[in-house]
Amino acid sequence: MRSVDLIQKKRDGGELTASELTYLIDGYSRGDIPDYQLSAWAMAVFFRGMTPRETAALTLAMANSGDQVDLGPISGIKVDKHSTGGVGDKTTLIVAPLVAAAGVPVAKMSGRGLGHTGGTIDKLESIEGFRTELSRERFMNQVNEIGLSVIGQSGNLAPADKKLYALRDVTATVESIPLIASSVMSKKIASGADAIVLDVKTGSGAFMKTLAQSEQLAKAMVDIGTEVGRKTAAVISDMDQPLGFAIGNALEVRESIETLKGNGPNDLTELCLTLGAHMVQLGGLASSVEEAKEMLRGKIENGEALAKFKAFVAAQGGDASIADDPSRLPQAPHTVEVKAEQSGYVSAIEAEQLGLAAMLLGAGRETKDAPIDYAVGVTLRMKVGDPVEAGATLAVLHVREQGEAAREVAERVRAAYSFSASKPEERALLLSVVTANGIERYV
Amino acid sequence: MRSVDLIQKKRDGGELTASELTYLIDGYSRGDIPDYQLSAWAMAVFFRGMTPRETAALTLAMANSGDQVDLGPISGIKVDKHSTGGVGDKTTLIVAPLVAAAGVPVAKMSGRGLGHTGGTIDKLESIEGFRTELSRERFMNQVNEIGLSVIGQSGNLAPADKKLYALRDVTATVESIPLIASSVMSKKIASGADAIVLDVKTGSGAFMKTLAQSEQLAKAMVDIGTEVGRKTAAVISDMDQPLGFAIGNALEVRESIETLKGNGPNDLTELCLTLGAHMVQLGGLASSVEEAKEMLRGKIENGEALAKFKAFVAAQGGDASIADDPSRLPQAPHTVEVKAEQSGYVSAIEAEQLGLAAMLLGAGRETKDAPIDYAVGVTLRMKVGDPVEAGATLAVLHVREQGEAAREVAERVRAAYSFSASKPEERALLLSVVTANGIERYV
Repeated sequence: MRSVDLIQKKRDGGELTASELTYLIDGYSRGDIPDYQLSAWAMAVFFRGMTPRETAALTLAMANSGDQVDLGPISGIKVDKHSTGGVGDKTTLIVAPLVAAAGVPVAKMSGRGLGHTGGTIDKLESIEGFRTELSRERFMNQVNEIGLSVIGQSGNLAPADKKLYALRDVTATVESIPLIASSVMSKKIASGADAIVLDVKTGSGAFMKTLAQSEQLAKAMVDIGTEVGRKTAAVISDMDQPLGFAIGNALEVRESIETLKGNGPNDLTELCLTLGAHMVQLGGLASSVEEAKEMLRGKIENGEALAKFKAFVAAQGGDASIADDPSRLPQAPHTVEVKAEQSGYVSAIEAEQLGLAAMLLGAGRETKDAPIDYAVGVTLRMKVGDPVEAGATLAVLHVREQGEAAREVAERVRAAYSFSASKPEERALLLSVVTANGIERYV
Repeated sequence: MRSVDLIQKKRDGGELTASELTYLIDGYSRGDIPDYQLSAWAMAVFFRGMTPRETAALTLAMANSGDQVDLGPISGIKVDKHSTGGVGDKTTLIVAPLVAAAGVPVAKMSGRGLGHTGGTIDKLESIEGFRTELSRERFMNQVNEIGLSVIGQSGNLAPADKKLYALRDVTATVESIPLIASSVMSKKIASGADAIVLDVKTGSGAFMKTLAQSEQLAKAMVDIGTEVGRKTAAVISDMDQPLGFAIGNALEVRESIETLKGNGPNDLTELCLTLGAHMVQLGGLASSVEEAKEMLRGKIENGEALAKFKAFVAAQGGDASIADDPSRLPQAPHTVEVKAEQSGYVSAIEAEQLGLAAMLLGAGRETKDAPIDYAVGVTLRMKVGDPVEAGATLAVLHVREQGEAAREVAERVRAAYSFSASKPEERALLLSVVTANGIERYV
């Protein structure tokens, strides 16, 4: 087998076999096949696509390139969740204890963030004492004991994906749906869960800008999961504005606690209940998503969801009293209010600009080892559809230092808001659900 | 400027500017831009193509990446010729002295071959004493004195093209018309001629299999020449069977001498007159191609073409007496006749198979530094359209050793011939001419 022939086969619209894709990925992992052949192949995939069978074979080859986590010691059907990422996305902090309260074992490995805010691991570390590095044994024991653990990604999960992603990033081959799908799924499959629920964002604040693209990506990922024997479902939701009100690590923990208490923002609550319901259903603990959703609403109302969160924080060494007194979380020394300069209705909020604002304040990192300021961030006061008078507060910045830099960020946040004279039509948050049975639109 | 953005621009169907292409090629030449970005860009070009403006800019960037030959010391309009390569292609050996006899200065740098037979330089070196390495000064002086010199490519011509071609070869990005066109033209432009005539082959024995593809390639090359101010014309001819009868280095020199004497095969003579006529016309020595062709016929008839060949061989240290006594050229010790097993008309000859046969006998090289056997090769006795009786000789192998290997080659040559019961329709040799004015079909 010669790599150049495989590149040509794909270039000319052919379908590579599983053994051909394994040859490419294994050779690339070992360094026997050079970057310049994989980048040419990736560009050919950009133009020609891959069949579901090819995409699944590529995913397995990448999943097999490193460690495979064996969650066997944990009893029950382990369900994982993955978000394609968005601004203000704190769903794991809420969904994980919520479904654990309903009996779904959650053994989750999560990443640090690069971008707007930290990742789930950074957010959890804003809780004093919280440890995200546990031994594999302690991790599994904790899930068996309290039903839930979230740790940092350790070991060598899908190293071929890591190497290929870095190559794609510098060769303009990121934006290929089968390549994105296999990148996500290779890590999830290597992480060992029995079932996977995907939280796919769409819109101006997301990687996929249109619903059609997002559905294609969701379908590609669900097809992979189905092909390799992992039950998979994807929920597609709107990311045309940030999710909830808080953007920033400790600020998002605080909002998550409020949501677990039943006082969270409607959009965030609804999305968490939906994602959680799919997890419960795939976990075999409810016969329908609707039934599962009702079950989860009950867990919020009766306090079990919050109690599970507290047990989880305590088990990992964190200060669980923040759940009762969120003011114990890191708080920025200053706030700056961003005021509206005109009256009208909020017609749009550029989520990406708000994410960038949070990063500029110190909530996210631009490079892999940059420090994160847990306390800073942005909280929105106004969201799309809200009526606004000139002079009203649109958002509040939580800043380490007042001054020119903060003023510039305030200007950026103000500019992210658009206004209209009449109330804009209401947009649905939940758009589609993709399962092995197909695509179902909510709207 | 970032290379990844330029790759993406091309991927998305955009047109790169001259400064963007220069950035890519210069950075690649210097080693600042890695192989993996150029291969991804080349694959994007494979799918998206390039505009004539882009192709010309790429060509100039590659031509400028190394030495630029200044043919200024040679008086007159210097006209170069390039062939896209084919089996039995010895046109340079004939056309160069032919047009020099008509007054066109020919200062040609030529390559060694990789494949079926040697290149023009190897063929010339089959003449005892012939030197293909001359100083730049002696080269130019010879052209001023006798109107003609052919030397090996020396110096550092278009090194970016060389580097990019090697990369394309292992990334399945060779088959892109604008990339092929710019590769050819970058070397021609760096070689310094004022005008260029391109000999583009089409058919089963050529790189371009269809007339439409060949015309596209020819047009792309003519567009480049026109864009950068070099008069350029391309003649497209059939390569569904080998050109002439001889395949092999000394065998081809011998056939070239016969052609210069007016006794050459019809197809070879006609193609050489046509290519030469375009050179004479672009050189400003005739007002039409037809007039130029008549002039060249006269140079063969009056012996001036052969005399020019002898002067050329002598000037470069070769034994010019081979022109009067071709038996002084290297001759293989044995011949093997390939006999027809059936009667009928020759309906097709697979040129590539015959080229491979010559290489297997030792006439060509598989690797860059492999030795060549000047004496060996294949001479055809039958060509397409000829009536054949079973047992008649189709071709003769000129071999170093008789035995199993020679018998296998004989079998390969026999298998390259196809037969039909009725005489096949005659195929035209000359198909199209492409100039700055457009494409003109002969048939």
